[in-house]
Amino acid sequence: MRYLTAGESHGPQLTTIIEGIPSQLSISTEKLNDSLRRRQGGHGRGRRMQIEKDLIAITSGVRHGKSLGSPICLQVTNDDWTHWTHIMGSEPLEEGMTEEDIKRKISRPRPGHADLVGGIKYQHRDLRNVLERSSARETTVRVAAGSIAKQLLEQLDIHVVGYVTTIGGIHADRSIPEILTAQEIADRANDSAVYCLDEEASGEMVTAIDAAKKAGDTIGGVVEVRVTGLPPGVGSYVHYDRKLDARLAFAMMSINAFKGVELGLGFEMANLPGSQVHDQIRYSESEGYTRETNRLGGTEGGMSTGMPIVVRGVMKPIPTLYKPLESVDIETKEVFKASIERSDACAVPAASVVAEHVIAWEVAQVLLDTFPADHLQQLKESVEARRTEAKEF
Amino acid sequence: MRYLTAGESHGPQLTTIIEGIPSQLSISTEKLNDSLRRRQGGHGRGRRMQIEKDLIAITSGVRHGKSLGSPICLQVTNDDWTHWTHIMGSEPLEEGMTEEDIKRKISRPRPGHADLVGGIKYQHRDLRNVLERSSARETTVRVAAGSIAKQLLEQLDIHVVGYVTTIGGIHADRSIPEILTAQEIADRANDSAVYCLDEEASGEMVTAIDAAKKAGDTIGGVVEVRVTGLPPGVGSYVHYDRKLDARLAFAMMSINAFKGVELGLGFEMANLPGSQVHDQIRYSESEGYTRETNRLGGTEGGMSTGMPIVVRGVMKPIPTLYKPLESVDIETKEVFKASIERSDACAVPAASVVAEHVIAWEVAQVLLDTFPADHLQQLKESVEARRTEAKEF
Amino acid sequence: MRYLTAGESHGPQLTTIIEGIPSQLSISTEKLNDSLRRRQGGHGRGRRMQIEKDLIAITSGVRHGKSLGSPICLQVTNDDWTHWTHIMGSEPLEEGMTEEDIKRKISRPRPGHADLVGGIKYQHRDLRNVLERSSARETTVRVAAGSIAKQLLEQLDIHVVGYVTTIGGIHADRSIPEILTAQEIADRANDSAVYCLDEEASGEMVTAIDAAKKAGDTIGGVVEVRVTGLPPGVGSYVHYDRKLDARLAFAMMSINAFKGVELGLGFEMANLPGSQVHDQIRYSESEGYTRETNRLGGTEGGMSTGMPIVVRGVMKPIPTLYKPLESVDIETKEVFKASIERSDACAVPAASVVAEHVIAWEVAQVLLDTFPADHLQQLKESVEARRTEAKEF
Amino acid sequence: MRYLTAGESHGPQLTTIIEGIPSQLSISTEKLNDSLRRRQGGHGRGRRMQIEKDLIAITSGVRHGKSLGSPICLQVTNDDWTHWTHIMGSEPLEEGMTEEDIKRKISRPRPGHADLVGGIKYQHRDLRNVLERSSARETTVRVAAGSIAKQLLEQLDIHVVGYVTTIGGIHADRSIPEILTAQEIADRANDSAVYCLDEEASGEMVTAIDAAKKAGDTIGGVVEVRVTGLPPGVGSYVHYDRKLDARLAFAMMSINAFKGVELGLGFEMANLPGSQVHDQIRYSESEGYTRETNRLGGTEGGMSTGMPIVVRGVMKPIPTLYKPLESVDIETKEVFKASIERSDACAVPAASVVAEHVIAWEVAQVLLDTFPADHLQQLKESVEARRTEAKEF
Repeated sequence: MRYLTAGESHGPQLTTIIEGIPSQLSISTEKLNDSLRRRQGGHGRGRRMQIEKDLIAITSGVRHGKSLGSPICLQVTNDDWTHWTHIMGSEPLEEGMTEEDIKRKISRPRPGHADLVGGIKYQHRDLRNVLERSSARETTVRVAAGSIAKQLLEQLDIHVVGYVTTIGGIHADRSIPEILTAQEIADRANDSAVYCLDEEASGEMVTAIDAAKKAGDTIGGVVEVRVTGLPPGVGSYVHYDRKLDARLAFAMMSINAFKGVELGLGFEMANLPGSQVHDQIRYSESEGYTRETNRLGGTEGGMSTGMPIVVRGVMKPIPTLYKPLESVDIETKEVFKASIERSDACAVPAASVVAEHVIAWEVAQVLLDTFPADHLQQLKESVEARRTEAKEF
Repeated sequence: MRYLTAGESHGPQLTTIIEGIPSQLSISTEKLNDSLRRRQGGHGRGRRMQIEKDLIAITSGVRHGKSLGSPICLQVTNDDWTHWTHIMGSEPLEEGMTEEDIKRKISRPRPGHADLVGGIKYQHRDLRNVLERSSARETTVRVAAGSIAKQLLEQLDIHVVGYVTTIGGIHADRSIPEILTAQEIADRANDSAVYCLDEEASGEMVTAIDAAKKAGDTIGGVVEVRVTGLPPGVGSYVHYDRKLDARLAFAMMSINAFKGVELGLGFEMANLPGSQVHDQIRYSESEGYTRETNRLGGTEGGMSTGMPIVVRGVMKPIPTLYKPLESVDIETKEVFKASIERSDACAVPAASVVAEHVIAWEVAQVLLDTFPADHLQQLKESVEARRTEAKEF
Repeated sequence: MRYLTAGESHGPQLTTIIEGIPSQLSISTEKLNDSLRRRQGGHGRGRRMQIEKDLIAITSGVRHGKSLGSPICLQVTNDDWTHWTHIMGSEPLEEGMTEEDIKRKISRPRPGHADLVGGIKYQHRDLRNVLERSSARETTVRVAAGSIAKQLLEQLDIHVVGYVTTIGGIHADRSIPEILTAQEIADRANDSAVYCLDEEASGEMVTAIDAAKKAGDTIGGVVEVRVTGLPPGVGSYVHYDRKLDARLAFAMMSINAFKGVELGLGFEMANLPGSQVHDQIRYSESEGYTRETNRLGGTEGGMSTGMPIVVRGVMKPIPTLYKPLESVDIETKEVFKASIERSDACAVPAASVVAEHVIAWEVAQVLLDTFPADHLQQLKESVEARRTEAKEF
Repeated sequence: MRYLTAGESHGPQLTTIIEGIPSQLSISTEKLNDSLRRRQGGHGRGRRMQIEKDLIAITSGVRHGKSLGSPICLQVTNDDWTHWTHIMGSEPLEEGMTEEDIKRKISRPRPGHADLVGGIKYQHRDLRNVLERSSARETTVRVAAGSIAKQLLEQLDIHVVGYVTTIGGIHADRSIPEILTAQEIADRANDSAVYCLDEEASGEMVTAIDAAKKAGDTIGGVVEVRVTGLPPGVGSYVHYDRKLDARLAFAMMSINAFKGVELGLGFEMANLPGSQVHDQIRYSESEGYTRETNRLGGTEGGMSTGMPIVVRGVMKPIPTLYKPLESVDIETKEVFKASIERSDACAVPAASVVAEHVIAWEVAQVLLDTFPADHLQQLKESVEARRTEAKEF
């Protein structure tokens, strides 16, 4: 399983090609659109979210509602494109025109964005050439790819849910998801303006976002993704690059603006003795091997244990502030106050949806590295066989 | 650049093959052995470290002190092997003998280790077949591969140093490395029994380790790796799997027992407003573009900015305790108190050496994805050209 | 550099996403369309080629005629799609309808096609689900990706041309291209109804195609691709999977219906003594090292020598014949005479265009493995430096 | 499944690390050594083959005769190493010594070898630094890796055999293997001095080799590899880089001195009508689907059909001749007659053993891409399930 994405933020469309999905999987456009809709929600989003109502078009790999085994191409049109055809068109400028004549040229790199370094790396003196691609708009199709992965995992009784645990220093009670089913978690997150399971914290987070906005500032937060039903032995200890932990960290940290990732107790493990960190092993004939607790977050030795995967990521505050940071114009070398391209005060709720889908993809990918799967039935049987092996071990 | 490692903890040797190192690089066996020696040090290590004095043998890819461009094979002999030839031999058992006749068969999985899940995955009922490979002994040759990477980076004036910032709840002053050179940091880490730059915290950490040991418990901690001199634009925003942040997170989290990773302010960013997280951009003709601060840890948009890379990882306490955890014998299904295979109370100092080398490898790898390098001179010129581009942008 | 393709033969469109093209490359839509047009030409094509006039739409990665460094998405619409929306739609069938109600269900696998094995592998009992993707229609976007590669190589004075050397047992004089420039070869191929450089053989090939068609049969042939201007040392002997020869063979053999590939004298080397196979080395101050002959086809030790790359591939006759082959209906298990889905008598001319573009891609990819490049200027300088190194060695 | 190899021709040893072999596979050292022994045999080999008696040492990944699932490291010592410690040592030269003081420096590149281009690419002015790695000595450990693959395939009733079909223009009867079992083919190849199944041709080939040797010349040839028992649907048509044909071509062409590869009728398909190229499909309840003939060499649409895979490769004559070719000294730029480093007149028989093992590896790798497997039993069941699916389709 692999995928590529393409598309600029103000280009005609975003596209992803997904290769390696087993055949015979039911693909629901409704579920795809639902994932996109959730990504566009959450308290604290700015005007762009109102402009775009993202909808999926499937242009290959699915016929009569089922995957063919061939590459799946998904497209999301940028509704705003009609206003940008001149500025972002692929054809050369008409003779006599220069980039200067085109409005929207950018020579002022924003701190915390790819602008300056991207300009240096690719030798773009119009920094729009950088920010159009480095924009989190691209996560739209990463969510779409993740939605396909989720639909695959659901067929195997594996469920992936994401939600917010911290925004701007407000921390939710992290024990709440431990007693809920995946469906209950999803429902509760959807009921919250900030996709947070803790009702009280939710309210405070909304207040914090509004306060930040008022102060011309932004705030970040932490999101958590929980994977239940994963059979034991996904990932491997035999070579470092096959460890599930490493793969999950890679996925989470590949999301725009994410700067940290942890499993289970995570960084808190640096403050606790071993006797309070590890999970004792239990056995019963009906359930096989279980763990008394899940402090390690569902992995041992780089492999899934069968307990829920619990992985968190931290998102930095959006760097574009009304209270601007100082930067330097690359043409004049004069100091300026960084311009506002976007006005979200907090994108953490949306990021929890992105994280959910990105982790779903990664889990599905490692799963398919482990089990054969030309068609869905083959995969189902392999996963079921592993569950039996685990119980009978 | 890629490498594979091989070797069981009590097998004859550990081996790594490293492919893709440019030719004409001076390779110092002394530096390789020095890295291995540092990995074996640190307060809190057990008996095994006294048995093995790891030394490198180079069996290919280097001639008369210089890399040939061909694969480099490095070997470290396990001095203890003579006592294990029967138990770990590759040849079939003599007729009439069963695994039961071989001492050291293990049917009791230790919590927090790969034992149980590894047994299920690979259908090993002698769990020794799992733990021999899942052991952190393997990091010996990962350090060796990283030492080659460090020697390459040094030729480009890129320096990588690792050290301890937390052990068992004792936190070092994290501002110390910001005012030191790479060499000063390396020296100061070597002067500390726990490879920590903060002298006062060092002392407390030693006390904490001794206390944990006495209590039959173990403690974990946090290590930090710092990369200076990296040119801007290593990694890319154009596709999620090319982001330097993701690659660093992957590398750090692939180390045995690591459960979290963060860059710059890391998880603290969830508690701060945007105006206190981002780094303002400065310019001067002599230095080009710089950042006023380095809160983001040296990356923007998934690319190096030219500021030091600052990445931390958290290591869980070693799961093997004198104060044992409960588990279940896979043969009898009876509960038992998990056995002691190893007696380190804290392996965090050694882990800081592993992290340093693992990050060095990853940085070198991403660097060589970015710049051409059949031979060292070509790489030097490319990196220098980028530094000039950045300054003149 | 990497790319994925998507699209069914009668789906709405074909798509490719191309990742890793350096920035600042001029991209010409005209050249892209010209490549597609050439692929649709050649004597012996059937009705489909008249229906579709393939045109490229660029939906990302290019702005104002230049590559951005971000993924390039190319689309080709299937003009015929309006007639297939019901048969090939991605949405589930309306309630009460079954696949049987949809016309065009296929239960009769054609010999020589993916039909039967694809059906087994992906558990498709409507074999249309296989043939829609296994169709050579997919090569449309492989040609598009190759056209981007060609435009990149041209900037480095590297030229790739493809043409026909054999059709149905008629062999062209293979010495002709040796004395022509790339442009002359391209022009002469375009002047031939079968893209063959030998005028006399061209005529005979046309006759052979017409004769085969009349006989209800099909014929295959051999195509040759020639790459001039490639600097020495692209590819490497240091590891088997980095050899240029292997990469070229992989590329050529990945084309639909190709069953063999050879470089230089190729299979003829089995009949000749070493003294008539190898190329003597010459040196002059003005030109550096050259080879007296080019029997090895431009590589030594898995690397480009600086001489033209000469690689040939054999295409089997199209398996769908008017004179049908016997096969078995998968529902009834009754023998039938394989149906006609397509009526080309010979697709070798078109295949020479595909081969040209597929080889161009592979050469560009190996080139960028050797000289990684963020922007075009950087690549130009690296390649030029290598040419100087070679001359001054 | 993946592997890396390391080692110079006159260095201390050759090494390979093989990652991804399922656990519980019986590994026989005897079979490994038998493969190495066959590689060293065949009429026409020179002195080196008498010096080295290659023997395998397994240093990881196998315990008590069974694979552990962890990386397998195999080593072959160069017996001749004691005479080369000074010339090829990894440590820097003693002070005051230069490369000129070390005997065996080479400034004269041999035509047809990697010498000149490798020197340019890696900036080696002592061309020994190139030829030590580009030497076919490296195929020793590729054969070892392939032997592990063969042992895996045998457990699945998949058999891979290689043999010679042409040497120096003498062609064996290619229909012979079609009526023999894999074991019969292997036995008959071993009975021939040139590993050829056709007794009469064998004799003529020996004569041709002796004649070439006497004439100070060399001869090449064609080898064929046959894979029986492969289930249908290995490889895929859904993306070009997953086609089995392409993977086989890559593998074959990655062997030193190979310049062409073909499946089934191969290049002959350019001369035949479609009605004589494709294989009619048959069905019977007892056997399921079969093909009447096997002209396509066991693949359709880039997938195995269940028929034997038949793939051939052409090896050029060894470039080092007693009747020398002209070349240029890189120091003096003077023309010289290329020196003799090696004296084999024909290495085609040995190459058939290399091809057999290289193809066995590739087939096993694509098989495991299709049926990922942690332990042998899991793989056996997946493959058996596919055979049943195929029969019941």
